[in-house]
Amino acid sequence: MPELRKDPVIGRWVIIATERAKRPVDFATERDQPLPPQECPFCEGREGATPKEILALRPNGGGANGAGWTVRVVPSIKPVLRIEGEINRRAKGMYDLMAGIGAHEILVEGPKHVANAADLAVEQIHAGLHAAAARIADLEREPRFRYVLWFKNYGEVAGAGRIQHARSQLIALPIVPKRVKEELVGTRRYFEEKERCLLCDLLIQEREAGTRVVLETAHFVALCPFASRFPFELWLMPKRHACDFRAVRPEELRDLAWVFKQVLGRLKATLNDPPYNYLLHTAPFRRQRGRVGHWRTIEEDFHWHIELIPRLTRVAGFEWGSGFYINPMPPEDCAKYLREAAVAAAEPAHV
Amino acid sequence: MPELRKDPVIGRWVIIATERAKRPVDFATERDQPLPPQECPFCEGREGATPKEILALRPNGGGANGAGWTVRVVPSIKPVLRIEGEINRRAKGMYDLMAGIGAHEILVEGPKHVANAADLAVEQIHAGLHAAAARIADLEREPRFRYVLWFKNYGEVAGAGRIQHARSQLIALPIVPKRVKEELVGTRRYFEEKERCLLCDLLIQEREAGTRVVLETAHFVALCPFASRFPFELWLMPKRHACDFRAVRPEELRDLAWVFKQVLGRLKATLNDPPYNYLLHTAPFRRQRGRVGHWRTIEEDFHWHIELIPRLTRVAGFEWGSGFYINPMPPEDCAKYLREAAVAAAEPAHV
Repeated sequence: MPELRKDPVIGRWVIIATERAKRPVDFATERDQPLPPQECPFCEGREGATPKEILALRPNGGGANGAGWTVRVVPSIKPVLRIEGEINRRAKGMYDLMAGIGAHEILVEGPKHVANAADLAVEQIHAGLHAAAARIADLEREPRFRYVLWFKNYGEVAGAGRIQHARSQLIALPIVPKRVKEELVGTRRYFEEKERCLLCDLLIQEREAGTRVVLETAHFVALCPFASRFPFELWLMPKRHACDFRAVRPEELRDLAWVFKQVLGRLKATLNDPPYNYLLHTAPFRRQRGRVGHWRTIEEDFHWHIELIPRLTRVAGFEWGSGFYINPMPPEDCAKYLREAAVAAAEPAHV
Repeated sequence: MPELRKDPVIGRWVIIATERAKRPVDFATERDQPLPPQECPFCEGREGATPKEILALRPNGGGANGAGWTVRVVPSIKPVLRIEGEINRRAKGMYDLMAGIGAHEILVEGPKHVANAADLAVEQIHAGLHAAAARIADLEREPRFRYVLWFKNYGEVAGAGRIQHARSQLIALPIVPKRVKEELVGTRRYFEEKERCLLCDLLIQEREAGTRVVLETAHFVALCPFASRFPFELWLMPKRHACDFRAVRPEELRDLAWVFKQVLGRLKATLNDPPYNYLLHTAPFRRQRGRVGHWRTIEEDFHWHIELIPRLTRVAGFEWGSGFYINPMPPEDCAKYLREAAVAAAEPAHV
């Protein structure tokens, strides 16, 4: 059973995967050779190669775990957390730990063997977003879970592993990750002083300046953040204030699919198909809704968004240990390159 | 002039290197081909290939910027911060920024073309530690600086670049990095409750348990931390409570050199010469010494140490964005491997 352990100095939780015992030499020799396409477990027609599906969209019908789907969510075959068991929060001397309880799901973004979601049709991307929102809403029903990480690793450097089939992942956790807590604290502090959302204010300022904005649609802004850690780092931000991705409206989700298609396509064209990661930043589960003034009230002050990072630069020693980064390219330059790299794609219906 | 910019949500400072303009294609094609040894600017006899030295140890005499040194510190030829100019703290709308003022120095750890410090003699490592302590003490005299990062990148993956000559780096900053602040807050909170140092308590518990201890000398303990983010992550911790590395005593520095030799040698043997990073965690400059009860009083509560991370695993998307890590190997297993991998090296005189 994996363990969740807490760093006693800075309070960061870590999954320690106690059962995946490795010898040191396994790390030294490990290379991610791509799996041949005919062995891909995520292609249509090979549904038996994965655990039984949790969710699938079959607009033209068809039975579970067979062909005919557009998007399919399955349990991870190598889950980092276990769904069954007691959380068993406890101390070990001065340390805090709990059982590694959670869920780990793979969201397969299309039936064809396409590696980069940049090459999927907007409607296909839209189906993937729809499935992600549905899975997050469903995972919230489990009372042991406090947060779900929805993220994507594309390319070997970004941690995609051996299978070159577009997919994202969902990891439901019994804790709120450190970085999410920091964002909640930062936006809460701002709200207490201003009675306004920090990221709403930031959006107004960025749209006025324009220098870091990559594109804007009816419902979203894609921009390179002012204090970007990495070249071509991007935030995809909804214009409408909402703390929770699951509150997204159908017209916003369609719009977001087009934004993803544009942004991923422009990164691919501008940076020669770079590896990348993205991660949803959204409000935790189990918050106490509507209790204004309570420290857990985050409806007004948090603003969900997606953080996207192409993996172009090496991360050096002091960046790991200090939380302090060097970015060799100003976000204003990155945004300019991406503004000029528009990709042909069907416009969202409402623009 | 580079800029220091602050993330408005979580307060993290980033260096934006505005002058190193790159085209996107430079990131896509960049590879670090090793420089031929005869072109190494850090070898004895090629002193003219670096900027003029800041410090050099020449136990047998000899003139500045000539041969005969054991350790040599020079300014970086590609500094990420500039030493001259006003800090010019200012706002830009809701954002905070300042000029990229600081120092960036390279500490060459020996005159011979040896890549991994694991292959240096203990006395050579000791000379490097001595030079690091001297440079940190000197940099503290500059009133614009608040912290110095002393770190090492070994191996291409860890950011060592093209030159395969053992060296560490010093970056003096006009701010305290986020992670250091978090450690100060965490240890301060513990001290306020217990009136004891968190890391002193941790050392007692770890030495009693023994399962995560790799080695122990008269003055130091090397251990794999309870909530390790990475396999074979290590902390090198002084047994004597001190918040500040510069307070290190001569006998401790000699001991630490032996600990480094052991730890780096054991990692090399166990993990087939892995890339690694280490970083000193020490108290900031300009603290208000002796004012007990003041929030900046960290003499009692902070405990300097060195964090060392072999770069074995890919860091995936959600780890970047969430501050939440998955470690595939328990620190107890890692410590056991490293305990059993003792390296032949002269014992410190006092053991």
